[in-house]
Amino acid sequence: MKRVGVGLGKHIIAELFECDSDTLDNVDAIKKSLLEAATASNSTVINYNFHRFKPYGVSGYVLIAESHISIHTWPEYGYAAVDVFTCGDKTDPWKGLEVLKDRLKAKRITVMEITRGLNVEKEYDGYWEPKKKIVREVLT
Amino acid sequence: MKRVGVGLGKHIIAELFECDSDTLDNVDAIKKSLLEAATASNSTVINYNFHRFKPYGVSGYVLIAESHISIHTWPEYGYAAVDVFTCGDKTDPWKGLEVLKDRLKAKRITVMEITRGLNVEKEYDGYWEPKKKIVREVLT
Repeated sequence: MKRVGVGLGKHIIAELFECDSDTLDNVDAIKKSLLEAATASNSTVINYNFHRFKPYGVSGYVLIAESHISIHTWPEYGYAAVDVFTCGDKTDPWKGLEVLKDRLKAKRITVMEITRGLNVEKEYDGYWEPKKKIVREVLT
Repeated sequence: MKRVGVGLGKHIIAELFECDSDTLDNVDAIKKSLLEAATASNSTVINYNFHRFKPYGVSGYVLIAESHISIHTWPEYGYAAVDVFTCGDKTDPWKGLEVLKDRLKAKRITVMEITRGLNVEKEYDGYWEPKKKIVREVLT
């Protein structure tokens, strides 16, 4: 049964305050936390990349089959900008956020959940298909 | 002069409707568009990855020094979920979005701008510094 009148995905925008600054500046810890968050939300990891800035701060990204999880940290402010965006019925972005909140030891958090792709299924259902590959006929 | 009482970054959440479905399903075109958006917003590219799903759809991200640009497309609905998140005074995420809207030929678009890291500079200014590396003293 096709869901109609709902969104394609849930996008959680989380502001994590009063986190552990040493963790926020540790690229290995951040990478591990985001990959754990992907598992916790029941997502399938496709690719990831993490980067530590000088003098401090980490940015990272996990591309999942169901969308993405991202983080940008400011250890000097104890702050991290986190996004957990998952699609489909089988994933739960809130479980991923719970892992991140725990691993970064956030004492205060504000969260917004945005529904992405609202009603597009209803409006565009089935009007497009990928072009068929042209296969050259060989006469024998 | 330090800015106080404002956010660290601007995060644009854009819903692009009625896009060109063939473009949405073309991983090379999507990659090119996002890299052009990075340039247009005056961002510095650190890393990127793009993936085409079967039977259709593309996901991709560009990790930039100023945060990230991401996309997830549903060609079958003519829809793309786009995020352009940039930090600092030198970047303009709206210019990046303008490029994406143009390249994907979106006929309809809804946009939300979220200020990330609001007031954290004010609240946590300078309370943390990365640990100094411990260098073993060698007595000769």
